[in-house]
Amino acid sequence: MTRTPLRTPTHDGVLEAARAVAAILPATPLLALEIEGRTIWCKAECLQPIGAFKIRGAWHRLSALDADERARGVVGVSSGNHAQGLAWAARRLGIAATIVMPVDAPAVKLANTRALGAEVVLYDRPGGVNRDAVAQALCADKGATLVHPFGDPWVIEGQGSAGIELARQMEHMTGSGPDLVVSPCGGGGLTAGLALACPDAAIVPVEPEGWDDVCRSLAAGAIQTVAPDAPPTACDALQTPATHPINFAVLAARCPFGLVVTPREVAAAQRLAFEKLRLVVEPGGAAALAAVLAGKLEVTARTAVILSGGNTDAAAFAKVLTPVR
Amino acid sequence: MTRTPLRTPTHDGVLEAARAVAAILPATPLLALEIEGRTIWCKAECLQPIGAFKIRGAWHRLSALDADERARGVVGVSSGNHAQGLAWAARRLGIAATIVMPVDAPAVKLANTRALGAEVVLYDRPGGVNRDAVAQALCADKGATLVHPFGDPWVIEGQGSAGIELARQMEHMTGSGPDLVVSPCGGGGLTAGLALACPDAAIVPVEPEGWDDVCRSLAAGAIQTVAPDAPPTACDALQTPATHPINFAVLAARCPFGLVVTPREVAAAQRLAFEKLRLVVEPGGAAALAAVLAGKLEVTARTAVILSGGNTDAAAFAKVLTPVR
Repeated sequence: MTRTPLRTPTHDGVLEAARAVAAILPATPLLALEIEGRTIWCKAECLQPIGAFKIRGAWHRLSALDADERARGVVGVSSGNHAQGLAWAARRLGIAATIVMPVDAPAVKLANTRALGAEVVLYDRPGGVNRDAVAQALCADKGATLVHPFGDPWVIEGQGSAGIELARQMEHMTGSGPDLVVSPCGGGGLTAGLALACPDAAIVPVEPEGWDDVCRSLAAGAIQTVAPDAPPTACDALQTPATHPINFAVLAARCPFGLVVTPREVAAAQRLAFEKLRLVVEPGGAAALAAVLAGKLEVTARTAVILSGGNTDAAAFAKVLTPVR
Repeated sequence: MTRTPLRTPTHDGVLEAARAVAAILPATPLLALEIEGRTIWCKAECLQPIGAFKIRGAWHRLSALDADERARGVVGVSSGNHAQGLAWAARRLGIAATIVMPVDAPAVKLANTRALGAEVVLYDRPGGVNRDAVAQALCADKGATLVHPFGDPWVIEGQGSAGIELARQMEHMTGSGPDLVVSPCGGGGLTAGLALACPDAAIVPVEPEGWDDVCRSLAAGAIQTVAPDAPPTACDALQTPATHPINFAVLAARCPFGLVVTPREVAAAQRLAFEKLRLVVEPGGAAALAAVLAGKLEVTARTAVILSGGNTDAAAFAKVLTPVR
């Protein structure tokens, strides 16, 4: 289990990840959304084969394993989207994958992870601090590689490939790339990757109420954690207790602040994406759009918003579509 | 109102339309969907800016109008998607658009058409045979050009651009184009366009129960109409009383048969697109996928399915997601 110390993720690493990802996955569309006369560019990562951007980092990480590491398999910890990304990449590369998932993860995420051939080990979220111990025990047992959902340079660079793609798409369509990228933020893998991908853009992470550790970390200048009594959130994809030092190093250098959105704001963004973009976006995936819609930051003429995932149960989505007034 | 006789739409015309459309609209994604171990390629036309393929034909038709015709405006008849396509293209070209729409069209389609700046004139669908008279009176009044929703060579060729796009995408991803294209069918504009676009593929139109005039027309070898007492259908986009001779000439030469799907099969397809593709597909837009899912035709290794639109009201979609068992 002892591994080489983590290298620092780089812009060049993101460019390399973008080439690796482009060789296997078509670019997700960058869709124009008009909000009060302004066009916002929405990167539809919910249209990835697994319904989330996590496929990028997982593919890039697993591709970098050598034959011996591949033979011993991989282990992941995830509420669902990283799980599916890992399972997808592992199946494609012929690697055995074991995923430690919370028992309250959306049924669709559990079902899809199993359908992709991964072995799922469940844990109770309230005792979630032990999930890493469970994963490490599995790794020790099998000699498998632990693939961290965000605190890993390959994973960060892989997620950053979304930023390379969107910058190229926006340049093609409008003549210039983004000057502002707004992204849902859990552990900060995607946000750090986007920051490395788009060195000339402002990067704003968005978190759900109660799970705003990155916002507070940016304000404090040091990593903060989520309170043990944090409220439940529909944004299961963004439920991470704290970011990782290699992510925070990138975020602290590039994000002056983060934003927080409420459940009501998230649901409004999901409805807008349904109506105007005909996309199914999960709560966590809609957090950045929610911040823009709620007027929590000044959008520019070159604003990109990441719709990071679309794995939500039918009953939950039906409730979002028909709010009680 | 007297116009030159309709020319015959051609493969070259579709290629020209594909160039015109590509200059203004990015390609919609072609998404892989695994069904019982087979990959079906789904063309996500619901992701067009207006949420449906109709933007293609409208753009190609209006682009072909001369300055004098543009100054006198255009008139359309539509349950909603053609209306939005026409309104979108007209706004972009600075042409006044008036659309005759049924009073029971989905609210989202009425609202979006008005939001795009078109004038909407409503009519009651039961007396729907008169909608053409309403439109012709408007045209006579203003000297405007009537843009038929499907019986028009430019419109057919414009819709066919979807076929050029999907064939290129499938070739890029798999090495070869489609040998079977399954498409929702209302008046037959899209289906005829696809047939012209993909001369080497089998083309199968799919209609909703009770509105199977094209199926019966193909079987009879002559244009048949929908019964006056046809049942209501959620597939408002496919509610056309009969196809047009220029469409039928193409369809009769290329489609050995058509298929019919039930409301339950359509809803199941909408749910699958929600869960596996994270797409909002309206009932009519899901008809072709419904036929494939229900096992009504033998899919090949190179099957393409058109998801033709995604404009559906939130309440209706919520009901589809939570079926009463």
